[in-house]
Amino acid sequence: MILKNNEEIDEVFVEEPGASFVKKKVLIGPEEGSDNIIMRHFSVLPGGNTPYHIHPHEHIVKIEKGRGVVVDYIGHETEVKEGQSLFIPGNEKHQFRNPHQEAFEFLCIILNPNR
Amino acid sequence: MILKNNEEIDEVFVEEPGASFVKKKVLIGPEEGSDNIIMRHFSVLPGGNTPYHIHPHEHIVKIEKGRGVVVDYIGHETEVKEGQSLFIPGNEKHQFRNPHQEAFEFLCIILNPNR
Repeated sequence: MILKNNEEIDEVFVEEPGASFVKKKVLIGPEEGSDNIIMRHFSVLPGGNTPYHIHPHEHIVKIEKGRGVVVDYIGHETEVKEGQSLFIPGNEKHQFRNPHQEAFEFLCIILNPNR
Repeated sequence: MILKNNEEIDEVFVEEPGASFVKKKVLIGPEEGSDNIIMRHFSVLPGGNTPYHIHPHEHIVKIEKGRGVVVDYIGHETEVKEGQSLFIPGNEKHQFRNPHQEAFEFLCIILNPNR
């Protein structure tokens, strides 16, 4: 088995078009031997947002810290907070935003697209 | 998308042989439309443990609260705590124990065995 200290894992700004002030780290993925499932940790800084985008793969999300907004495929906004979980099916447009002053952090778990 | 309040999800004691004082809830799974990935939350109560067992599927684990012990395939024990993540490959014997006085909680993410 592989044990990781989350704080020691490199965190990088997401460079994808449409992402603003979003940091990402991979907690468990292919580097740890997990070829099927990838567990990522995202921090959306105050005023930041993920891309409002659509893709074939689904997201399993757990809000870990703070609160933010999730935008659904018709643009409807829902406030989300620590202690909530989300399932976003594949091919459903979505976005996360942080309009607040504190960090908004969540896990986003996906199937490895390269498996 | 589906939004869940983790606190409102039914929690049940794990009845599997070898499990002792372990509670489980499924945060996201087939009921939420997630047919590929299942995100479960486990609480190992003080003095409790999961089975020391082996199975083909792998575990992606994130320690959410407290601290406990993970036992590997040769019986070696490692202390783990909040802020750490684990990858346990398929077919590798393992166990979680809580020898402490406080709750020990973690996420354990798996591929849906029925997909």
